[in-house]
Amino acid sequence: MKTTIKDLGEIELLNRLKRFMRCRQIDDDLAEINTINKNLLINTDLLVEKIHFSEKISNAKDIGWKCITTNISDLICSGSENIISFTVGLVLPPSTHWEWVENLYEGMCEAMDEFGGEIIGGDCSCGETKIISITAIGEMKPPRLHRGSALPGDYIVSTGYHGLSRLGLALLTSEQLPSNVEISRELANRAISAHKRPYPAKKALQALIECKPESMNWRAAGTDSSDGLLEAIRGICQSSNCQAVLSKTSILKDPDWPEDSKWDEWILNGGEDYELILSIPKEWAEALSKKLRSAKIIGFIKEGKPNIFWENLEAINIAQSSLFQHF
Amino acid sequence: MKTTIKDLGEIELLNRLKRFMRCRQIDDDLAEINTINKNLLINTDLLVEKIHFSEKISNAKDIGWKCITTNISDLICSGSENIISFTVGLVLPPSTHWEWVENLYEGMCEAMDEFGGEIIGGDCSCGETKIISITAIGEMKPPRLHRGSALPGDYIVSTGYHGLSRLGLALLTSEQLPSNVEISRELANRAISAHKRPYPAKKALQALIECKPESMNWRAAGTDSSDGLLEAIRGICQSSNCQAVLSKTSILKDPDWPEDSKWDEWILNGGEDYELILSIPKEWAEALSKKLRSAKIIGFIKEGKPNIFWENLEAINIAQSSLFQHF
Repeated sequence: MKTTIKDLGEIELLNRLKRFMRCRQIDDDLAEINTINKNLLINTDLLVEKIHFSEKISNAKDIGWKCITTNISDLICSGSENIISFTVGLVLPPSTHWEWVENLYEGMCEAMDEFGGEIIGGDCSCGETKIISITAIGEMKPPRLHRGSALPGDYIVSTGYHGLSRLGLALLTSEQLPSNVEISRELANRAISAHKRPYPAKKALQALIECKPESMNWRAAGTDSSDGLLEAIRGICQSSNCQAVLSKTSILKDPDWPEDSKWDEWILNGGEDYELILSIPKEWAEALSKKLRSAKIIGFIKEGKPNIFWENLEAINIAQSSLFQHF
Repeated sequence: MKTTIKDLGEIELLNRLKRFMRCRQIDDDLAEINTINKNLLINTDLLVEKIHFSEKISNAKDIGWKCITTNISDLICSGSENIISFTVGLVLPPSTHWEWVENLYEGMCEAMDEFGGEIIGGDCSCGETKIISITAIGEMKPPRLHRGSALPGDYIVSTGYHGLSRLGLALLTSEQLPSNVEISRELANRAISAHKRPYPAKKALQALIECKPESMNWRAAGTDSSDGLLEAIRGICQSSNCQAVLSKTSILKDPDWPEDSKWDEWILNGGEDYELILSIPKEWAEALSKKLRSAKIIGFIKEGKPNIFWENLEAINIAQSSLFQHF
């Protein structure tokens, strides 16, 4: 029989978790962060079982990877490349196997090996459903990205494909696809991987920093597309008090993505895609789309009450973004 | 009918919560902390309904106060007086009334008005039971308190009464008292207040800092008694690899506390008391007990395998500390 965390008890559980923490303050109630000379960005994310993750489709390692990377994505889309540390609050039913907890932390550590940062502390409690509460801290450097920094005349850039994670979710849950077309095995694999192992746009942020024209001051609006491509653009419009005009033909699709307009909904509102959505001056946008193969100019920003239109000025229905409202 | 958070929806809920946040970064995915030139202490605490709080005995304002102050206590007992900021992760059933959420945040703000700090961000999700995940950040200054810094020859100091919160819980839940004695109305009020509105030992930390003999370097072991007086001392012994010898007659009791040995258990293992338990050199301990009326020397530290004894060398049963194991 597998060991449960009830078998272990709280003290032994916390003892075993210490090997995933790389700091020395394991004997105190809390942790130190040596961040002298740095300002910080901080982000707290909650992942609730059956709402944000399901064990039917993701194993504990994938869930561990995902809860760290989705949090890192929020730091990256705000301009922080240097991830410093994490605290992890875990609510677990007493019947949870220790093996599950171990795999969760191993998945978290795989993500930290890739993107930086270390677990410095946290808390544990029993509860009816599994809940993971992650607080991530990153260094705040001058290249800050704000949702509210877009200006009329900016170009809108997306740094990669959208819709893959949504397709992956559908494949993993045997959900009906938007239409009855055959999809390639390669697309299916990319989609499942995008859903299980999201990969934050760290390289895209680095490219954005490197290709800023020297003559320009830093002024860039950005967010990630974790709640969907349109929701990201809606957020920028709302916070910057402006309108976006999108070019339908410019929105990048995976090369194997079905040529069927019924599939567009997942591109626009699929969510969990973790690309950077940027609003930057034209010259900079052009430099970025040259430097970064996956980056594409998909529209522009203009004055007006927050809204999104296609380039023929047809308003875009963004009601679907309520998909990512969790109440 | 009262408005529920399901009626509001996530966007409106987050909008309404903004008034409790004093920072300007409300339009981004995360928050900035301007902590240049500071090192930090960070602490994450989970409060799960029915385990850490019950709405039968505490209203939302009290719960808000408690989840901030218990977290602050961890910062204070590690030496941090300057509380900087909090993030709040909230899991709530969709049927939760907005009024409850508002009162929770008002209680949090009352605690921050008293002890410092501000809410700078967080996350919200629905879930089956209410869960509050708080991450607190304080400034780390040279007077650090570690659980593992005790040395043989140190005196053990407690900065206040114990057992009150446990009595308060019993009174609030109509639990049978340890023996059938009458308790004063004043004691009952103090006990209920200690349970509902715990008050971290900030003044005791300040007194400790002020009364350090000039000839001494800073070296002090400390923790809070949130898991009980004996558990705090056990933690210091374990982390410092030493033994504690306690004087039964020196442990302070509320003036109205019943003179009945059956009541001692709540003094020793009641928990949720939030006093500082310190292990410091004799001269310093004496200075502190003179300066701070509520501080009392209750024992000393000696060499040996981690354990706790009464001064007649009778070993103390600390098995009851498993009361505060949450699995």
